[in-house]
Amino acid sequence: MTEILTSYACGTWTAPAADTSGTAQPSVRTICDPATGTELAGVSSAGIDFAAVVAHARDTGGPAVRALTFHQRGVILKALATYLNERRDRYHAISLTTGATARDGLIDIDGGISTLFSYSSVARRHMPNSTVYLDGGVERLSKRQTFAGQHICTARPGVSVQINAFNFPVWGMLEKFGPMFAAGQPVIVKPATNGAQLTHAVVTDIIDSGLLPEGALQLICGSTGDLFDHLGEQDTIAFTGSATTARTLASHTCVTERGTRFFAEADSLNFSLLGPDAGPGSEEFDLYVRQLVTEMTAKAGQKCTAIRRALVPAEHLDAVAEAVSGKLAGVTVGSPHDEATRMGPLVSADQADDVREAISTLTAAGAEVVCGGEATRTSGEGSGSRAFVPPTLLKAAADVDAVHDVEAFGPVATLVPYRSLSEAVEIAARGRGSLVGSVVSHDPEVVREVVLGTAPWHGRILVLDRDDAKESTGHGSPLPTLVHGGPGRAGGGEELGGIRSVLHYMQRTAIQASPDMLTAITGTWTPEAARRTEGGHPFGKDLSELRIGDTIVGGPREVTLEDVEHFAEFTGDTFYAHTDEEAAAANPFFPGRVAHGYLVVSFAAGLFVKPEPGPVLANYGLENLRFITPVSPGDELTVTLTAKQITPRETDEYGEVRWDALVTNQDDDIVATYDVLTLVEKEAGKSKS
Amino acid sequence: MTEILTSYACGTWTAPAADTSGTAQPSVRTICDPATGTELAGVSSAGIDFAAVVAHARDTGGPAVRALTFHQRGVILKALATYLNERRDRYHAISLTTGATARDGLIDIDGGISTLFSYSSVARRHMPNSTVYLDGGVERLSKRQTFAGQHICTARPGVSVQINAFNFPVWGMLEKFGPMFAAGQPVIVKPATNGAQLTHAVVTDIIDSGLLPEGALQLICGSTGDLFDHLGEQDTIAFTGSATTARTLASHTCVTERGTRFFAEADSLNFSLLGPDAGPGSEEFDLYVRQLVTEMTAKAGQKCTAIRRALVPAEHLDAVAEAVSGKLAGVTVGSPHDEATRMGPLVSADQADDVREAISTLTAAGAEVVCGGEATRTSGEGSGSRAFVPPTLLKAAADVDAVHDVEAFGPVATLVPYRSLSEAVEIAARGRGSLVGSVVSHDPEVVREVVLGTAPWHGRILVLDRDDAKESTGHGSPLPTLVHGGPGRAGGGEELGGIRSVLHYMQRTAIQASPDMLTAITGTWTPEAARRTEGGHPFGKDLSELRIGDTIVGGPREVTLEDVEHFAEFTGDTFYAHTDEEAAAANPFFPGRVAHGYLVVSFAAGLFVKPEPGPVLANYGLENLRFITPVSPGDELTVTLTAKQITPRETDEYGEVRWDALVTNQDDDIVATYDVLTLVEKEAGKSKS
Repeated sequence: MTEILTSYACGTWTAPAADTSGTAQPSVRTICDPATGTELAGVSSAGIDFAAVVAHARDTGGPAVRALTFHQRGVILKALATYLNERRDRYHAISLTTGATARDGLIDIDGGISTLFSYSSVARRHMPNSTVYLDGGVERLSKRQTFAGQHICTARPGVSVQINAFNFPVWGMLEKFGPMFAAGQPVIVKPATNGAQLTHAVVTDIIDSGLLPEGALQLICGSTGDLFDHLGEQDTIAFTGSATTARTLASHTCVTERGTRFFAEADSLNFSLLGPDAGPGSEEFDLYVRQLVTEMTAKAGQKCTAIRRALVPAEHLDAVAEAVSGKLAGVTVGSPHDEATRMGPLVSADQADDVREAISTLTAAGAEVVCGGEATRTSGEGSGSRAFVPPTLLKAAADVDAVHDVEAFGPVATLVPYRSLSEAVEIAARGRGSLVGSVVSHDPEVVREVVLGTAPWHGRILVLDRDDAKESTGHGSPLPTLVHGGPGRAGGGEELGGIRSVLHYMQRTAIQASPDMLTAITGTWTPEAARRTEGGHPFGKDLSELRIGDTIVGGPREVTLEDVEHFAEFTGDTFYAHTDEEAAAANPFFPGRVAHGYLVVSFAAGLFVKPEPGPVLANYGLENLRFITPVSPGDELTVTLTAKQITPRETDEYGEVRWDALVTNQDDDIVATYDVLTLVEKEAGKSKS
Repeated sequence: MTEILTSYACGTWTAPAADTSGTAQPSVRTICDPATGTELAGVSSAGIDFAAVVAHARDTGGPAVRALTFHQRGVILKALATYLNERRDRYHAISLTTGATARDGLIDIDGGISTLFSYSSVARRHMPNSTVYLDGGVERLSKRQTFAGQHICTARPGVSVQINAFNFPVWGMLEKFGPMFAAGQPVIVKPATNGAQLTHAVVTDIIDSGLLPEGALQLICGSTGDLFDHLGEQDTIAFTGSATTARTLASHTCVTERGTRFFAEADSLNFSLLGPDAGPGSEEFDLYVRQLVTEMTAKAGQKCTAIRRALVPAEHLDAVAEAVSGKLAGVTVGSPHDEATRMGPLVSADQADDVREAISTLTAAGAEVVCGGEATRTSGEGSGSRAFVPPTLLKAAADVDAVHDVEAFGPVATLVPYRSLSEAVEIAARGRGSLVGSVVSHDPEVVREVVLGTAPWHGRILVLDRDDAKESTGHGSPLPTLVHGGPGRAGGGEELGGIRSVLHYMQRTAIQASPDMLTAITGTWTPEAARRTEGGHPFGKDLSELRIGDTIVGGPREVTLEDVEHFAEFTGDTFYAHTDEEAAAANPFFPGRVAHGYLVVSFAAGLFVKPEPGPVLANYGLENLRFITPVSPGDELTVTLTAKQITPRETDEYGEVRWDALVTNQDDDIVATYDVLTLVEKEAGKSKS
């Protein structure tokens, strides 16, 4: 008997054979190399105590992950990505046994690792170095501002479960793990049977690395057993796979009765449209053909994002059919172990049978085969196996319903002619919700009409033309910074998209309190909260000394007419509102000549700056500057600068400090408000160059 | 027979009696005044063709609403709120017949109308004057920046269905309608039977106002029939009501199979905690008692947000029990038609039976009655009716499971003693997800621990203390700018929260394209897109002439050492990086003395300004300023200012123009980037003061 993959559950690697209960009869599923038919391993989760797995995540992993700040989680993600990157050769070797070519492996393995790097960056750059994320600004709720609101996002004290598809054993896990871990979630990974040997290898290394707190990651090779029965209000299931399985999971009582969050990302009938402007001979025509061939053959078309419906102007249908089938004829199909191979087998013989059946359904419904279709191999060792399906291009009129409903999850796409853009938009929508669409055109009006018409049905839309082709990442590639997921048939979920997916795993809560209490809760100074002016100039304090609320008040300083005239002349900003009394008074917003906004903030800086060298290293920016009350010559300015948010960096000798700046005049009217962004040393004197 | 409320379906007011099919046997549900038992009206949706209702919304209402810009929708919402506000007296008179007191009516009617005003403001202030909302900034996807990403939100071409609860016939409709309409959705409203007479009156006025496009709002009085069978991928159901009904709806095939979005907001076992610092005699103790009494009696406790579990330090349990029951004894229960009444009946006799049964369940499980409990009335006309339940305070140990599970949806709360804050946080979580919690304490450490511990289980948390009590809006009141909804038992949905709820009804899509194509799609200039420098200074153009991409390039201008020294002296900003070569060079970020950031932006303004009066009225702010490359004396600055976003106001003679500002040096290094915010006339010369 072949090796049975172990599961990492409750802190130990468990084999189902080691099940001592004596009652469970392990039902082992076998993994074969689809190119050779060789049996590689088996999976079974028999004997795994899923209640204990969930409890281990909830009681051991969760508290340990949640004790880390967002930045600390980001640092771990970076170390993990680096660690895996050093071991990528081994993963690539295993990847070949899943039917994936070396090139397919790049998307899966290197793509997965780079997603971890990206989420390390999200956690460290877009989140605070604490455990509470502030969502949006302070909401003013009352006139005297004793009562205000702030949305916060906190970590849910639950468990995140991944149910992954077979096509990306590494990326599929890591693209979910990155956001989940950043959000403070312990994770349970359940890979598909096919490809589990690769997921297993990566998880083994992750555990061996010792980088994660125990309980932060568990691996279940085999079925999910009664796992879902143990999930509740604070847990999340992130599913990738078929629309049919997604429906079943969405109806589980943990979702419908206990409110477990459920995100699905399902295969969908993605479209790619050739613009009417992009006839044969145009650059876009060639780009369209090349992209379609790539999407049909990469990963043997086993991508949720692959093009299934190729919408082309009716008059160019034959030209596209000819060009695509010509290129497909040059695609070498064979074993991934053979270097000449450009497209491998499907992940299993069963999967190939499903694809052949889908092709039959499509042709029975009225689609015609342009090329491919037969189940025979073209070349290479072992490629006579039942797992091979040749690249298959079909064509069908838009009214063939099956084209919009039957997904052949393999190297299969259907050409569909359209007669007008509005018709094309309607055809695209007949997929009833897809992950991605693409428009290949160099005409901005075509692009605008198709993109805005199809956007509500899609999670992502790519526009390909001569301008972006060289740098485009392609129709089929989700990117960590952009959302991935689609409405309706595509599952209705949303993954990735930078910080967006981290927040999906957290709970958003509106907090209403006095400014002082909001400050105590969020660790960020809230307008109207107490300010501390004793204890010296806050610019003299490094991050070990500086406290939220530390304040310097500078001024008053009078702004004279001479100042305004001089500033106008010195800077060249001779806008009439500063130089011409009569014209200024005619302006609906000014009482007469007023000081420049830039003069106000420059004088304010002069009032709060501490000249000599100290822990404040630089002012690197300004945010949310608003000029409220105009400053007339003779007005006196006072500035109040308060430490608002302190973000020490984990891996630098300094951190960011955001200061609340408030400029008022002699009547206490607000002249300007803004945030000043500075870099401040963690310990004074430690960062000298 | 009493009047049967009509439904507004497919553009006409339809009575079920008018059903001509002859097959449907209208099953009429009767609405009674719960205080008097008088039969008021009946509801039935028999004969309504729900397929036609959905089609009318989808094909007539949807396109009409989506053709409006966000600002135009906002203007309509404001007009509608104003229109309804003028007719509020009539609604208040009807409200009394639902069992609501005049005070209860304020929350419902005036609260609902003010939510419409708030969403008018969200649409006009937080969204562009177009139909495409930009979610986040441009994502840089490639090195040479020929390929970039931008998330957009577009209107879903579907239908939004409201299933509302009986307790707020007006607010419940309007708090959902505001965001739905702002999002471009046609709306189908289905009120609960009890209270439908009030919803009917308001909808009648809305339709009569002629302010909405036909099909934007339909009203179904009666059951939903086969309505859900006609919903699909682009539709949304927003449900408010019991957790049990929410579960049933969540399992409907339109949700699980077709991906109709489903948001639920269910009643929940909300907690209110008295801090250990807030013993008898403290201000917070009194605030706690007063709030609990208010929450128990307002709307006769029929609020999803009412306090069900009052967590008090064990040592203060008796004192709280005494104080609360003392105040409850002074609450006059009776008919809302009687002015002396402070608390009315429940919405119906059946509802009162349910509450009595829940009280019995709680007491059978071990809860003790502190006061109330009996089903008799205290005073006033008609109050012998079965619909009356007196304010009932129970007390129970935390281990009485029913306290955390059984919701008595009436004037009922249970005191639960706690011994430590960590125990209190655990008790709160036993509600398995609630809409709102509150903490009454003046100790920041208590507040921080309880708020952060309970936040993942709640959609909103109120902190009440002596500082915010005067302006606090109270435990039970959702606010338009803050999210409303909670995880788990509370339904997992999210409503309100300003723009957040508008976006819940839209589709977020990641667009990948060249900068020029992104600009064409979004109507907003994307960095690296084409700039147009011909056609004169863009500050000379009003909004009818100005185009996205219009650009002025100013400079180069050298920054001399004298400039830097002079600016330091003039502004007082003598930070050493500008004044001391040696100290500056020791700073890790500067090569030596550098120019002030404020000097850079001031000189930049001098380079792009157009001095004479013109359509540009004012620079009202600056955003996202980042200083990238330091400026050394001798460097030459060039500024490139490009019209990025144009937002004409619907109701003013001017609008906002956001300009992309890019400052570079003689080596084309980026010195600074920022957005300049200006007010510009729609037609030159029209806004003179």
